[in-house]
Amino acid sequence: MQLHEILQQVQAGNLEISQAEQLLKNLPYEDLDFAKLDHHRKVRSGFGEVIYCAGKSTEHLISIYQAFADKNTCVMGTRACPEQAQAVQAVLPQVKYDPVSRILRLGERENQPLGNVAVCTAGTSDIAVAEEAAQTAEFLGAQVQRIYDVGVAGIHRLFARLEDIQKANCIIAAAGMEGALAGVIAGLVDKPVIALPTSVGYGASFHGVSALLTMLNSCAEGIAVVNIDNGFGAGYLAAQINRLIENGNAMQ
Amino acid sequence: MQLHEILQQVQAGNLEISQAEQLLKNLPYEDLDFAKLDHHRKVRSGFGEVIYCAGKSTEHLISIYQAFADKNTCVMGTRACPEQAQAVQAVLPQVKYDPVSRILRLGERENQPLGNVAVCTAGTSDIAVAEEAAQTAEFLGAQVQRIYDVGVAGIHRLFARLEDIQKANCIIAAAGMEGALAGVIAGLVDKPVIALPTSVGYGASFHGVSALLTMLNSCAEGIAVVNIDNGFGAGYLAAQINRLIENGNAMQ
Amino acid sequence: MQLHEILQQVQAGNLEISQAEQLLKNLPYEDLDFAKLDHHRKVRSGFGEVIYCAGKSTEHLISIYQAFADKNTCVMGTRACPEQAQAVQAVLPQVKYDPVSRILRLGERENQPLGNVAVCTAGTSDIAVAEEAAQTAEFLGAQVQRIYDVGVAGIHRLFARLEDIQKANCIIAAAGMEGALAGVIAGLVDKPVIALPTSVGYGASFHGVSALLTMLNSCAEGIAVVNIDNGFGAGYLAAQINRLIENGNAMQ
Amino acid sequence: MQLHEILQQVQAGNLEISQAEQLLKNLPYEDLDFAKLDHHRKVRSGFGEVIYCAGKSTEHLISIYQAFADKNTCVMGTRACPEQAQAVQAVLPQVKYDPVSRILRLGERENQPLGNVAVCTAGTSDIAVAEEAAQTAEFLGAQVQRIYDVGVAGIHRLFARLEDIQKANCIIAAAGMEGALAGVIAGLVDKPVIALPTSVGYGASFHGVSALLTMLNSCAEGIAVVNIDNGFGAGYLAAQINRLIENGNAMQ
Amino acid sequence: MQLHEILQQVQAGNLEISQAEQLLKNLPYEDLDFAKLDHHRKVRSGFGEVIYCAGKSTEHLISIYQAFADKNTCVMGTRACPEQAQAVQAVLPQVKYDPVSRILRLGERENQPLGNVAVCTAGTSDIAVAEEAAQTAEFLGAQVQRIYDVGVAGIHRLFARLEDIQKANCIIAAAGMEGALAGVIAGLVDKPVIALPTSVGYGASFHGVSALLTMLNSCAEGIAVVNIDNGFGAGYLAAQINRLIENGNAMQ
Amino acid sequence: MQLHEILQQVQAGNLEISQAEQLLKNLPYEDLDFAKLDHHRKVRSGFGEVIYCAGKSTEHLISIYQAFADKNTCVMGTRACPEQAQAVQAVLPQVKYDPVSRILRLGERENQPLGNVAVCTAGTSDIAVAEEAAQTAEFLGAQVQRIYDVGVAGIHRLFARLEDIQKANCIIAAAGMEGALAGVIAGLVDKPVIALPTSVGYGASFHGVSALLTMLNSCAEGIAVVNIDNGFGAGYLAAQINRLIENGNAMQ
Amino acid sequence: MQLHEILQQVQAGNLEISQAEQLLKNLPYEDLDFAKLDHHRKVRSGFGEVIYCAGKSTEHLISIYQAFADKNTCVMGTRACPEQAQAVQAVLPQVKYDPVSRILRLGERENQPLGNVAVCTAGTSDIAVAEEAAQTAEFLGAQVQRIYDVGVAGIHRLFARLEDIQKANCIIAAAGMEGALAGVIAGLVDKPVIALPTSVGYGASFHGVSALLTMLNSCAEGIAVVNIDNGFGAGYLAAQINRLIENGNAMQ
Amino acid sequence: MQLHEILQQVQAGNLEISQAEQLLKNLPYEDLDFAKLDHHRKVRSGFGEVIYCAGKSTEHLISIYQAFADKNTCVMGTRACPEQAQAVQAVLPQVKYDPVSRILRLGERENQPLGNVAVCTAGTSDIAVAEEAAQTAEFLGAQVQRIYDVGVAGIHRLFARLEDIQKANCIIAAAGMEGALAGVIAGLVDKPVIALPTSVGYGASFHGVSALLTMLNSCAEGIAVVNIDNGFGAGYLAAQINRLIENGNAMQ
Repeated sequence: MQLHEILQQVQAGNLEISQAEQLLKNLPYEDLDFAKLDHHRKVRSGFGEVIYCAGKSTEHLISIYQAFADKNTCVMGTRACPEQAQAVQAVLPQVKYDPVSRILRLGERENQPLGNVAVCTAGTSDIAVAEEAAQTAEFLGAQVQRIYDVGVAGIHRLFARLEDIQKANCIIAAAGMEGALAGVIAGLVDKPVIALPTSVGYGASFHGVSALLTMLNSCAEGIAVVNIDNGFGAGYLAAQINRLIENGNAMQ
Repeated sequence: MQLHEILQQVQAGNLEISQAEQLLKNLPYEDLDFAKLDHHRKVRSGFGEVIYCAGKSTEHLISIYQAFADKNTCVMGTRACPEQAQAVQAVLPQVKYDPVSRILRLGERENQPLGNVAVCTAGTSDIAVAEEAAQTAEFLGAQVQRIYDVGVAGIHRLFARLEDIQKANCIIAAAGMEGALAGVIAGLVDKPVIALPTSVGYGASFHGVSALLTMLNSCAEGIAVVNIDNGFGAGYLAAQINRLIENGNAMQ
Repeated sequence: MQLHEILQQVQAGNLEISQAEQLLKNLPYEDLDFAKLDHHRKVRSGFGEVIYCAGKSTEHLISIYQAFADKNTCVMGTRACPEQAQAVQAVLPQVKYDPVSRILRLGERENQPLGNVAVCTAGTSDIAVAEEAAQTAEFLGAQVQRIYDVGVAGIHRLFARLEDIQKANCIIAAAGMEGALAGVIAGLVDKPVIALPTSVGYGASFHGVSALLTMLNSCAEGIAVVNIDNGFGAGYLAAQINRLIENGNAMQ
Repeated sequence: MQLHEILQQVQAGNLEISQAEQLLKNLPYEDLDFAKLDHHRKVRSGFGEVIYCAGKSTEHLISIYQAFADKNTCVMGTRACPEQAQAVQAVLPQVKYDPVSRILRLGERENQPLGNVAVCTAGTSDIAVAEEAAQTAEFLGAQVQRIYDVGVAGIHRLFARLEDIQKANCIIAAAGMEGALAGVIAGLVDKPVIALPTSVGYGASFHGVSALLTMLNSCAEGIAVVNIDNGFGAGYLAAQINRLIENGNAMQ
Repeated sequence: MQLHEILQQVQAGNLEISQAEQLLKNLPYEDLDFAKLDHHRKVRSGFGEVIYCAGKSTEHLISIYQAFADKNTCVMGTRACPEQAQAVQAVLPQVKYDPVSRILRLGERENQPLGNVAVCTAGTSDIAVAEEAAQTAEFLGAQVQRIYDVGVAGIHRLFARLEDIQKANCIIAAAGMEGALAGVIAGLVDKPVIALPTSVGYGASFHGVSALLTMLNSCAEGIAVVNIDNGFGAGYLAAQINRLIENGNAMQ
Repeated sequence: MQLHEILQQVQAGNLEISQAEQLLKNLPYEDLDFAKLDHHRKVRSGFGEVIYCAGKSTEHLISIYQAFADKNTCVMGTRACPEQAQAVQAVLPQVKYDPVSRILRLGERENQPLGNVAVCTAGTSDIAVAEEAAQTAEFLGAQVQRIYDVGVAGIHRLFARLEDIQKANCIIAAAGMEGALAGVIAGLVDKPVIALPTSVGYGASFHGVSALLTMLNSCAEGIAVVNIDNGFGAGYLAAQINRLIENGNAMQ
Repeated sequence: MQLHEILQQVQAGNLEISQAEQLLKNLPYEDLDFAKLDHHRKVRSGFGEVIYCAGKSTEHLISIYQAFADKNTCVMGTRACPEQAQAVQAVLPQVKYDPVSRILRLGERENQPLGNVAVCTAGTSDIAVAEEAAQTAEFLGAQVQRIYDVGVAGIHRLFARLEDIQKANCIIAAAGMEGALAGVIAGLVDKPVIALPTSVGYGASFHGVSALLTMLNSCAEGIAVVNIDNGFGAGYLAAQINRLIENGNAMQ
Repeated sequence: MQLHEILQQVQAGNLEISQAEQLLKNLPYEDLDFAKLDHHRKVRSGFGEVIYCAGKSTEHLISIYQAFADKNTCVMGTRACPEQAQAVQAVLPQVKYDPVSRILRLGERENQPLGNVAVCTAGTSDIAVAEEAAQTAEFLGAQVQRIYDVGVAGIHRLFARLEDIQKANCIIAAAGMEGALAGVIAGLVDKPVIALPTSVGYGASFHGVSALLTMLNSCAEGIAVVNIDNGFGAGYLAAQINRLIENGNAMQ
């Protein structure tokens, strides 16, 4: 019995209230609480769908993209390797693949991009991770400006772009090695800075741990950190903050 | 010579342009670039002043608070120990101290609190850190709702407060031990979640490292992490995001 | 409106089914799902109440124990320090405190202890943690046999007690330093072994990490590990398995 | 001389008691203590044989499987790579290989599967490890229900399957990344939860260390942890607990 | 029934052989295998008794020393704190305490010290640990030469004592901080070097981990490492090797 | 408007001083501060250009080298893999590649090499990293003496070359495994020692961490450490110190 | 026999050359090689003596200072605690103690301070470590300028002092927490930067490890790192480089 | 001038004593101290030569083996990969290669093997490392008994071989995973146990770190540890101790 049916039986007097109470407590959660709990709602509400491709079989991936293509829905896949991209594109030639960000995308967004998210990197090696962040934010509706190769070893490069950075609603700062960029930017702006450590480096960088620790220990205010190489997570959070600043919080 | 004087001399024809160029390049940064670079500006622009008390001598601390009292400016000190608080209060009885959050505050904010920041904790032991976050956000102008002791080991407690959490502009989720609260909340809301690991725990919690790693590895979207026990940092960032959502980004 | 009232209104025809559906979806979780979700139920169903004392103020602790005393319910507190014990005992002299296990207990269990849980330690220094495990299991209804100081550096001591160990429903093996005891026992019995690493040791024992890793890497079958010094967790799990073996799984 | 022979000689008066004592003390352990010490007994008593294939040469592996085939005994190999599987199957075509769990199995179990073990995963990437656990438990006689992809980032998926999980005798919770699934389940059931961290993830997941720490630090009761990716260990322990709950402890 | 009695009953025809077999398999290990398994034998065979004092209550410690005094046996306690020493000495004034090595000793050895063990330290701060090693080796019968403060930062100090070191049967090299002493000595002698890392240092010495790693990674031959600050373990092993070199292996 | 133009306008009376002040504060940093901030100046002032090749595409790399070839400037690339070298050499045959140091160099230095930098290694496996250091220092104008395979496991080899080492202005000491070479040298000379840990080793060398910690904890004076395998960084710093000692500090 | 005597005997024909060869090879190292190997020479040659006070008994320390006072030699002690200072000053009132740097100094340097060493800190909490560095460098003859509280969270403070920093022969950059100061300075100057990580911070700063890693991974050139809180090591190396730049390398 | 020549000149009166003193102090170390310092002497004195092959070019390796073949000296190479072995064997067919231990050996030892070294492993996967140890000890003259696959998960296997182990002069215990074998053996014998951790395992074995820590923390006496997978080091030390026990210490 579904919720609706239970209530009908109560209304019709065919079901004792105590029995109804018992049944209601055992109703599958998906029926009762779908609207409240479904986190996919977040993605769907103006954001489109996102798929984590790493480790998925090509067959599985093709069927997912095919399903979205049939529904005419745009979708973005992250961490797709070239082999996955080729396999999907063989079936769905309209799918686009960016080998730098490893994003595999179906469909174009039609709305005007919103607000202003700045994506900064310390070096050129951080660009792959930064592009995952930037393209994620763009897919989720944000206007993105890319400000690459402005690391603190040559800090004048950062200052040359400072005004652009200061105008953004939210800044993503991607850096490997010493990872100092995020803290320096946070000291120069009064907007949220999402620190994105990358695994770029060698030796005592420990595959991004050094940058991660630097960012967590930043003495500047207005900064928080995502996982090493988690461009998607940074891009998602930036797009979310950007949208809330532009649109306000409709939920209150 | 100050900037103003140099320009006067140029205007008066007493100074060659090439000489002026040379002088300008060597002007102390604080004169030339104060407005652009001073990060204290962030704090001052509607935010008030913040002082990190830990490790400061009581003499030093008293003179700082005295200076603010003389200027009639409200100021907040973080990580003040009871001895520091007593010493400052002996001179300035109007200063208020909260032994839980260890915040030492001078003066009351007059503006209406703004927006909606939810501060959640997994357990009662996380409250000290959470209060530092909550009171920081309040000091910086945010309306704060406290939702404590809603950890995932008894997840019904969290669900009982879910709607309140979903209404917030920004959520701080403080947890030690396993630290799963932040990711679970981020999966249930579509607002930025600031994950605040605490050093609560023992054994393999490694003074907050376990909670930190859990939060960094969250599979949910819309989440970023601050340093272990960094209530101030979480509160600052939350207040900043909250204010931007309420007021929009005036800078663009 | 509570669940019962909603159903009454539906029955009485005062409430549309669609309205009722809406109301039901928004009912506070604690009302709707208390029986299903409340993890405290586990403790209560024949187990009694358990309180984590560490970090709680003595005022708070006294009021908790007073409440249980008023309800005539037995309750067990873990990680109580002597000061907490003294404060509670000053008000409630019937409360008992064991300084070794740091357990603070109100009331006696009346039921016959059930089954057979063996609690083993490698050395005498592990006894404090083992006692927390043993007394927890006892409080939760298990018959416990203590087999202490049978570490692998003198393995004949272990063999002298092997038959007792083999008879148990479930074995807790507490060890610090090298932590090899748990794996050796698991190789000698065909019952579940709960490995309980302790922080006993110095140098490269890293406060229990060495024992923890040894136990996680055990080549024997039928073994799983709890957090360092988590005697309560080991005792709880052992009592739970012991009870299920004795009583079967009533829920199926 | 074997034990029996020694005693016969004593009985016949051909051997001094002191000589017999000396001989007994030097008897090989395998003769004297075989029944008591042989851990293989555990596997054999209704469980069948298990082989760890990783690192074994194909020649060695073929001869092992051939020996079991000759004795008409069923046997299960874990962590077999495809090359090993092909080599064994070339000689013994009746051997079955599952490339997901990497289990290489000879013979079918004839007994009715027993009880109820639930194997849950947080994501689809955890399935390979979970299948090793599930198929191990099945090989050792347990009835297994698979409940995959119910991670806490979309916690409604977990709730939809909660009643099934609550009915099990024992639950295996496999998760990588943040690893919060195990603790959340343990907070919702009153059965033993075996937490199985997987190496799924990137960056600060440190190949499963993050999930391992989360699980060790779980605030819920009734939970213990096995090594990262140790599906076999989790499956073995679950089958053992499941059998004891169904059959009781015959040994007491 | 003891082993002897069982055999008597068999001899007298009062006990079936099958019954005797059963009884023998269940004899307590300590009876059957005492001579073979008892590790205390090692200590006793010319070595005397050793007690680990850390964490033992003073009452417990006094009764242990009293028992040895009653039996007129010499005994050595390690890691005794001054309070423990005072308590024992109050009852047994003949007990001697060395606050540097923290060794608490009852009775004098009468045999001539044997062989030649060299105990070297890098600095003066390593002497406490080195003295535990030296006095342990002496207590166990070894002749010990102390060669302190010969660390590699002033390597001429080491060379000035090199010939003495080269004559030893076995060398203990204690060092904290960089810990290079052990490897340098092992490169200069052809005797076993027992590397003894100490927790002396600060910052990235990580309480002895740096020295431990240095020693484990030594490129020299003839070196092995004990736990950080484990003077007792180093002294025991050195005395054992020293005695075997002097006396040969009697057991073969 | 550029700085020059602003001042002209002020001089001409076309611009208010207050307006000029405002404009000056917003001038792009690159215009105002280029000479002061440009870190490339360091490289250019007698040093030549350096390129980090790792991770750069061959197309990108060819265009960089082509640009320098067009300007007739010598340039050095670090961490070039053989494929990158071949690709660049196919276009610019005059480019030289050293597969040991992985340095890809265009053009010859014409000035006389300056001063005296000693580059020492503990073993032959450290030579690749040491050569990166040595060739970097040479490219930057230093005279370099190579003193290889003088590790402390055979310390006489070091002493045989001690006088050469003592004459240098600055010493680079490269070592993996135990990493003791740097501290031993620093104890024997009164010149700056740059400790260069290498990832040579296995097991508990942890890819250079052991050597890194040894070097950081050296008890000798006059020593500092660079990142694991950072031959370029060590060579750069050594060349810089060497040049300052030879030429003095022109800047004061 | 001493070296001189041996040669006299050879000259006088009383000693065979082969005998002399044998004797020479066995001469104590201190006699033969004192001048070459004695690292104290470094300290003495214009530098004065340095004593590491931590862990030394007050009796021992008094006798050391008394000895220097008798010889009228100036001496500096590091890491002296207030109790040690009081004890020494009670006997030798002319000894001076600085509780910030914990340096205990006897006698004044008479020579003119040499050159220019800049000691920078990120925050005020780093000053204790920085003062140990600064006073060490001063004791060893260097002119020191202190530039404190110029961390990158408010980078304009650093730029205000940049020209002073650029003039130095050598820069010490002390920072805890994120530790980014050292790399930023190294990107702005062309002098050696000695990075000095401090244990200032909390949580994921791990007592200085975060700052240490940041500094080791700096992308800037001309930088090397000393141990956490090793102000003495940084000051020594800076004074050594400073002196070599001012005086040149007399040894070549 | 060589030492001999200097003394001749002194004897002949052609050289002042003061000049001779000066010359002697500057003599190259290799001339003066060769006999005393040369660590190769250790290897040569009855031991033969050992070469570390890993990372050496095949050309280099062939020339080394060719040189030994020309001198008719037997030599052992460790960590030779199959490619290196093939290349050397192509030139010198008499060279023997064992792909398990990766030892590449030229020539046969003629002396009778000496004493008794037991090499034990926990599992079959540890055999590769154990064979490196065993064959190293054999090459250096020791009689070796191999006792493989006696890990503590099935401890009866160990006891079946205990008497053989107890007879040895020295025992090597190789184990990965939990690594408990070494401590258990050390508790059962009174001979030196060299603990040899192997990198066998997965997950939280951390490539041998778990076994290493277990062994360092062993509560048994008479045990020390070598680096992970360092079969050569264990074999060398065992052979050295074995030889000293058999022959005594000739040097005293």
